Amino acid sequence: MKKIGLFIFALLCCGFIYAQQALNGGSKIVSPEYNDDGTVTFRIHAPKAVKVEVTGDFFPQAGGIYSFGSAEMQEGKDGVWKYTSSVLPPELYSYSFVVDGMRMPDPSNVFLNRDVNTLMNIFIVGGGRADLYKVNAVPHGTVRRCWYDSPSLNKKRRITIYTPAGYEEGSKKYPVLYLLHGMGGDEEAWMTLGRASQILDNLIAEGKAKPMIVVMSNGNVDQEAAPGESSEGLLQPGMLPLPHTMDGTFEQTFPDIIKYVEKNFRVMKGKQNRAICGLSMGGFHSMNISREYPDMFDYVGLFSAAMLMRARGNSPVYMDTERKLERQFADPPRLYWIGIGKEDFLYKQNQEYRAMLDEKGYKYTYYETEEGHLWKNWRIYLSEFVPLLFVK
Amino acid sequence: MKKIGLFIFALLCCGFIYAQQALNGGSKIVSPEYNDDGTVTFRIHAPKAVKVEVTGDFFPQAGGIYSFGSAEMQEGKDGVWKYTSSVLPPELYSYSFVVDGMRMPDPSNVFLNRDVNTLMNIFIVGGGRADLYKVNAVPHGTVRRCWYDSPSLNKKRRITIYTPAGYEEGSKKYPVLYLLHGMGGDEEAWMTLGRASQILDNLIAEGKAKPMIVVMSNGNVDQEAAPGESSEGLLQPGMLPLPHTMDGTFEQTFPDIIKYVEKNFRVMKGKQNRAICGLSMGGFHSMNISREYPDMFDYVGLFSAAMLMRARGNSPVYMDTERKLERQFADPPRLYWIGIGKEDFLYKQNQEYRAMLDEKGYKYTYYETEEGHLWKNWRIYLSEFVPLLFVK
Repeated sequence: MKKIGLFIFALLCCGFIYAQQALNGGSKIVSPEYNDDGTVTFRIHAPKAVKVEVTGDFFPQAGGIYSFGSAEMQEGKDGVWKYTSSVLPPELYSYSFVVDGMRMPDPSNVFLNRDVNTLMNIFIVGGGRADLYKVNAVPHGTVRRCWYDSPSLNKKRRITIYTPAGYEEGSKKYPVLYLLHGMGGDEEAWMTLGRASQILDNLIAEGKAKPMIVVMSNGNVDQEAAPGESSEGLLQPGMLPLPHTMDGTFEQTFPDIIKYVEKNFRVMKGKQNRAICGLSMGGFHSMNISREYPDMFDYVGLFSAAMLMRARGNSPVYMDTERKLERQFADPPRLYWIGIGKEDFLYKQNQEYRAMLDEKGYKYTYYETEEGHLWKNWRIYLSEFVPLLFVK
Repeated sequence: MKKIGLFIFALLCCGFIYAQQALNGGSKIVSPEYNDDGTVTFRIHAPKAVKVEVTGDFFPQAGGIYSFGSAEMQEGKDGVWKYTSSVLPPELYSYSFVVDGMRMPDPSNVFLNRDVNTLMNIFIVGGGRADLYKVNAVPHGTVRRCWYDSPSLNKKRRITIYTPAGYEEGSKKYPVLYLLHGMGGDEEAWMTLGRASQILDNLIAEGKAKPMIVVMSNGNVDQEAAPGESSEGLLQPGMLPLPHTMDGTFEQTFPDIIKYVEKNFRVMKGKQNRAICGLSMGGFHSMNISREYPDMFDYVGLFSAAMLMRARGNSPVYMDTERKLERQFADPPRLYWIGIGKEDFLYKQNQEYRAMLDEKGYKYTYYETEEGHLWKNWRIYLSEFVPLLFVK
């Protein structure tokens, strides 16, 4: 009996190993590989290719936001193409290969992020701030994907909610951060591209942030859920913007989200226990929502925000904005935080908005970084903003 | 002011659309495309390629489990290669392209599943049973990724937990299904490859299954979490098996999971409110756990299970198995369910196990399908097993 068991076990393992070889061509290629000198080596087996490049956000931006430089890889005798980077500072990086003009993921790296309709491999060079983006050996919060009821939109919509470590076991109530994505994003964007749960886990574990609940909603009111997660099926994310995006509807129906959260989670209520922030379109939403409901948020974060005071259409949300801003700052938020990169295409807009705030005497905190309209910056802004929340 | 707003909005949109074009080369390629006649067309723009193939599980198995046939695609004048399938029956399918011998995902399809260390695109041909695998317009449960404490393993481990629609709002208690993955899998496998939350949402909505909690644990005791989700970092999933996999430790420490679930969720306790099932190694685990703790589970499902009564090492779990099985069947489970495919490499082993059960007079339900050791079968088994649970 034992012999048979062992035989069958061996058979089972062989079956699986064989399966794996069938799957990846028996590849033993390591890519990316972290070298001791701080460089990173990329490899791909492509013996029939004529030209292979690697492109990623460790190269300078080129030709538009989200588009980066590239380098040619060198082919070895074994058909393995190779490229070693310069020393890379700590960061979460994205990259792809370009094989004879065709962009493709690294076949040796299963970790991908989707940014709108593009998949990119990721890797992390640890150290410094980038350690916040890693899963570390610290207590971890819970991440729920649930469906809230939006009576104003007459539908149920998917939402991602982080509760800090200890939430399940305890009976404590927590303050809440509402964290909004940009155009083309959805309720998954801050979790994947933004590393929100890692940043929160790590800042809370280090005692640098108060334990808080983080609510990541979907700002495209025509979408029930992220691509692939709704009854629209496996519909490819397409060109932007979606209908009813940035027409005021999201801002007007936002109270449904707060209602759901405050009914179903152990939250501390009141303005002083609520924060809202977002990137790009989500910064626009945060600016509008906090202005439209001045008693709701004591902490407001505008990350690379679209600052336009009027967007389009005739939504009441975009009317009377100066008066509403005056009302908001009559009992001012404890923190009104603006973060922008020097190369952001929205930089000028942000400076104009600041000039207006200065002129009116409305107080805010300003945080400027290098580079542009990038997730790299939004992870930095989140990491800077969160420690400032819910402190007396 | 309004004019400026509109101008900036237009600029914002242009920026994004430009970004997208930079990302996917301005591609307007639709792939896969569902044709009215029930066929599916695949496309890829690869003007410099010499040979392009599509491989997927809509072709017959070839050369081992998980490895499938392929077909050559035809190049058009525009450099777009194309292949149209035969009429495909309803199913969730996986596929890849093979460009000059190099396997790669379809650049026009962002939906991928990871199976161990291989990424494959997916699509669903609806109808019949495959409608269970879709996200439909029905009430949706919540899916949590949380970390349970395992004192026996002296660590916190990640676990995926589905609670049915209505759980948050109500105060009702629910029965629990423990759903285990196979070798190379983790706490994500049933969610992605197995479509567990869709199957549960749909069966519950149709009234074909009782509302229940589903717990998806990680059966590799050396892992804290799925690849990329633990402090090991973005470590590529490798060859199998992992250390301490199938050495009895998972079975022995399983009560920690039940303890966590019964403490933190509104569950109905007692044998009659607990089910356990799993695929391959998870079937082996389900067989062992239900036999080791005979008062724990009234519903047991063995899907393409490794049936070996002794595995390896000297774990007490693998000792005295015949006596323990006798003890289990002295107060027999309400359902002991065995599902296997005719072409599964574990088919013979399952028939031998059945012969033993028959000889002893231990009652079970047997469900046989076509094909082999495949997620296609495991989704079928889950869909068949779940409606049988927790019925009086």
